[in-house]
Amino acid sequence: MRIVVGLEYDGAAFCGWQTQPSGCALQDVFERALAGIAGTPVASVCAGRTDAGVHAIGQVAHFDIGVNRPLTAWVRGVNALLPPSVAVTWAREVPTDFHARYSAVARTYRYLLLNRSERPGLCGGRVGWYHHSLDLGAMRCAARCLLGAHDFSAFRAAACQARSTDKLMHRISIERQGNVVTFEFCANAFLHNMVRIIVGCLIEIGGGRRPIGWLESVRDGRDRTRAARTADPRGLYLAAVTYDPGWNLPTPTNFLGVLPGDLEAGLSMCR
Amino acid sequence: MRIVVGLEYDGAAFCGWQTQPSGCALQDVFERALAGIAGTPVASVCAGRTDAGVHAIGQVAHFDIGVNRPLTAWVRGVNALLPPSVAVTWAREVPTDFHARYSAVARTYRYLLLNRSERPGLCGGRVGWYHHSLDLGAMRCAARCLLGAHDFSAFRAAACQARSTDKLMHRISIERQGNVVTFEFCANAFLHNMVRIIVGCLIEIGGGRRPIGWLESVRDGRDRTRAARTADPRGLYLAAVTYDPGWNLPTPTNFLGVLPGDLEAGLSMCR
Repeated sequence: MRIVVGLEYDGAAFCGWQTQPSGCALQDVFERALAGIAGTPVASVCAGRTDAGVHAIGQVAHFDIGVNRPLTAWVRGVNALLPPSVAVTWAREVPTDFHARYSAVARTYRYLLLNRSERPGLCGGRVGWYHHSLDLGAMRCAARCLLGAHDFSAFRAAACQARSTDKLMHRISIERQGNVVTFEFCANAFLHNMVRIIVGCLIEIGGGRRPIGWLESVRDGRDRTRAARTADPRGLYLAAVTYDPGWNLPTPTNFLGVLPGDLEAGLSMCR
Repeated sequence: MRIVVGLEYDGAAFCGWQTQPSGCALQDVFERALAGIAGTPVASVCAGRTDAGVHAIGQVAHFDIGVNRPLTAWVRGVNALLPPSVAVTWAREVPTDFHARYSAVARTYRYLLLNRSERPGLCGGRVGWYHHSLDLGAMRCAARCLLGAHDFSAFRAAACQARSTDKLMHRISIERQGNVVTFEFCANAFLHNMVRIIVGCLIEIGGGRRPIGWLESVRDGRDRTRAARTADPRGLYLAAVTYDPGWNLPTPTNFLGVLPGDLEAGLSMCR
């Protein structure tokens, strides 16, 4: 049978989602915990393969098992075997034509940027940091050119293996609360490093080093080398993965620890 | 001259504020960083000696130095020498009759409790956890008996060295946002473990294991053994220390990463 679970994690201590020979990946610790419950090796597929240092609130993964276990075994049982910074938040049985990655119709990523002169302390490892003032109006204005269907090849890492660079951006929000600027992006899918490269570009514009219209020219240039540096992975969160309601999966609960409530409301627009 | 600084830290990796022979305390790493800038040993005094695992947003500490350094040296210079989970957020020169601990007129502590059936993952180390449902109305009703001037000896650790157990509680708030319950306490001063023991009692009441009136009887009993277990230190934050405005110190900026905006507004009532 096929089981699908929700996962949250602090990515600081991991070398990303995807399995590594050294066993330092989230997939490695997750599959070891699954094997501990199943009593046999279990292979998993996730919705979004987050990079090293990137966090998740609403990661989704599926796996097939031949053994019969109550659903709680895939939540509490697996959690007992996972490191403290990783937790399964729910589990469901799904038909075998469900696929965590290919059934997803949209993903929401959130980027938290500490915007103050002093480096992070309390939130070290969980935010990006920019120490000059940022013009949110300029960033919002620039970001509009990314809404809708575009070729996003200017905003992908060299290592990106996506077959198509055409993506559909549903929503972008940029909000400040105190000294934290939260960027949120919802699209049908994202290229490798796409959110972090876009955030890097927006910081260039918000910091006054590039004009508003520069982002559109970067987009149209389809050339990664013209875009800004990739923003720090530590500020990035896979916030939610959206599936057809017919799969009857839980919607992500609130995002403890990084987000003001009004942005939660905004997020629901994209679920 | 006397310098006072604001500090924030994730307490997970430290054995509390107070210096330890093994050097694992926040005071140890802070004073080592100060010595690196001053070129000579520096002794510090903090406003609230947080326990092992307890965090701070608005810790305040002072120290005396004989060398002349620009104030930025006590912020950016010290931050360059501190571990990533600790940061100085501001520095001021103050008259030598200022004392981080004795000049403080109020302290605000915040306790974050993840209230869901699954254990913490993303916020592991930064929240307490209670997995049954909680009745906030009952907890709020019970907490009212702690407002005002009382003998809080029922709510102090055996190791507490305070001369007086009479404290003045200015404000208590208990709010839920999603699956996070935030308790906030503002008093002139706190006994050792006082917030965590009170939170432990409130969880007993909110979980339905004790009636609302039990908290008042615990208070009046003045007997620690009648109170509940001390709540997990990992949910506790020293949120703010209040001084007379005449000292002209910065008010704490927003509390990244753990708090909804409307509670920020509430906090300002107590600064």
